[in-house]
Amino acid sequence: MQSQGAAAQPPTAAGRSGRGGRLVAALDIGGTKIAGALVDGDGRLVTRAQSPTPAGQDGATVMRAVQQVVAALMAHDGWPHVTAVGIGSAGPVNASTGTVSPVNVPGWRDFPLVDGVRAMTGPLPVTLTGDGVAIAAAEHWQGAARGYRNALCMVVSTGVGGGFVLGGVLHPGPTGNAGHIGHISVDVDGPLCPCGTRGCVERLASGPNITRYAVEHGWRPAAGTEPSTAAVAAAARAGDPVALAAFDRAAKALAAGIAACATLVEIEVAVIGGGVAGAGDVLFDPLRSRLREYATLSFAAGVHVTAATLGTDAGLVGAAAAAYAAADSRLN
Amino acid sequence: MQSQGAAAQPPTAAGRSGRGGRLVAALDIGGTKIAGALVDGDGRLVTRAQSPTPAGQDGATVMRAVQQVVAALMAHDGWPHVTAVGIGSAGPVNASTGTVSPVNVPGWRDFPLVDGVRAMTGPLPVTLTGDGVAIAAAEHWQGAARGYRNALCMVVSTGVGGGFVLGGVLHPGPTGNAGHIGHISVDVDGPLCPCGTRGCVERLASGPNITRYAVEHGWRPAAGTEPSTAAVAAAARAGDPVALAAFDRAAKALAAGIAACATLVEIEVAVIGGGVAGAGDVLFDPLRSRLREYATLSFAAGVHVTAATLGTDAGLVGAAAAAYAAADSRLN
Repeated sequence: MQSQGAAAQPPTAAGRSGRGGRLVAALDIGGTKIAGALVDGDGRLVTRAQSPTPAGQDGATVMRAVQQVVAALMAHDGWPHVTAVGIGSAGPVNASTGTVSPVNVPGWRDFPLVDGVRAMTGPLPVTLTGDGVAIAAAEHWQGAARGYRNALCMVVSTGVGGGFVLGGVLHPGPTGNAGHIGHISVDVDGPLCPCGTRGCVERLASGPNITRYAVEHGWRPAAGTEPSTAAVAAAARAGDPVALAAFDRAAKALAAGIAACATLVEIEVAVIGGGVAGAGDVLFDPLRSRLREYATLSFAAGVHVTAATLGTDAGLVGAAAAAYAAADSRLN
Repeated sequence: MQSQGAAAQPPTAAGRSGRGGRLVAALDIGGTKIAGALVDGDGRLVTRAQSPTPAGQDGATVMRAVQQVVAALMAHDGWPHVTAVGIGSAGPVNASTGTVSPVNVPGWRDFPLVDGVRAMTGPLPVTLTGDGVAIAAAEHWQGAARGYRNALCMVVSTGVGGGFVLGGVLHPGPTGNAGHIGHISVDVDGPLCPCGTRGCVERLASGPNITRYAVEHGWRPAAGTEPSTAAVAAAARAGDPVALAAFDRAAKALAAGIAACATLVEIEVAVIGGGVAGAGDVLFDPLRSRLREYATLSFAAGVHVTAATLGTDAGLVGAAAAAYAAADSRLN
């Protein structure tokens, strides 16, 4: 259910009120690219900067790429108005120590990312969260979770991640990793995930795993093309039974994961973005159907599933939202 | 990790300070019995009352049994000091409407339990939570979760239930049902649970299901005795391979469920009570071992598993704790 009073209130503790003229510097750090932006109090990106992630290099080299992005933001004439820095990073992160250990950036293990940024930005407060938490902050501030008090926001893409809003506020958890739905097991004897667990949601529902399942069961892409999740989605749309089975298997895992969240923390909505969600009804139809099987208790059965609305800037908007929320909680 | 500052503070918002002389009336409503007590600010039961639950009867008959327990409490000379009523009930409950629909009390479906109690207790505030939430409140206030800021407390018995403390405070969720770990699926193609979902933690790990698995796989109790989980536990302790397998299967499901909680909301400890937990190492040894397989991400891998300390009064102590916490939050 949507909160009755929400429409008249700022959508989160990171709401719009009292932010006139303020900016935050946002960083969205993934295995492919490092994106940065100055973000205003309405979630607008005033300027942006970007660098590829040298993910295979040593930690110092990756940090230099981050510093290039920060330097580009600091060169913007809005920089004097920046009051805080928000970082969303591929996880796991450790918000309490300011360090990160992204699975797909092997050169960074317990790497002091916050210290590295602070060395450039000086006394500005820095807020670090996992990228899934940032997505949740973004969708709750500006996107499909706006107005909900209890929400799971997730990305289904190369990986599967997420974050929670609980009781109307972002719930990063003590270390900034809460909402890691991709790595809960929904099949205790299922296939081994690189994380070490069997039957993780990500191992069953990520784009590469949908494609892998389809190929292993005999589906083939058009001659001369490489297998891709988009091609499996197109085949499913055309009625190919193996492609449909691949999406149904993913939908079942996602449904069990979303149902677990609804059963454990009473979310009212699950917002789903990322490339696989872009397949549309091919994913959402079996997902809603499977959810009726796995979310059966009265308080969980009503969980609403909807598509994310913010697209690829969600990580930056969310890093900014988390920084604004942290600033507001310091002021209160 | 245990909160550094906790030792110097009251253990919860429902802490001891400022409760001199106050009492709350606590009710613990299950499918077998309806227990009541007056509970002081230190969690001591000043008096108690009890009635069997006429679980097979119509709703009004069940309510009359509750009213008998309340009447017995009201007859105690401490009643004038009672400032609030706390009810923990078998779920699902709906704290927002004050109604309950316990699976094992079919005469109660959306039954107005809070109104029925209020008809006797007048203007006293009434706090309703699920029984798993009450257990969590109790163990955080007086038991094994004391001093932790993020905890799952659960019962493994005829059923499997639980509740959360997050960020140092009880997390009942909007309807009072959060922490329902017994009905998350950890085996999407597993056996059907009466709740309608496949492969629920409860369907794999409850006492009756441990016994059922053992019997189905050829274990037999001593001649002239009925199969029981205690007998399966004794057989496992003696090295019976089927009995060991039954406990390992339960441990695997519990480990996956606890790991899901650690991965989703960053709990630091899982406190386990109930009759099956009473089996001791026969359960806890495989559980800790399996947990290493299913809680693999850095922030989840450290989750600590320990036995509950409050025993059968936990439901009453927890209903009281929830009522005290609600009163304290009204005062603040």
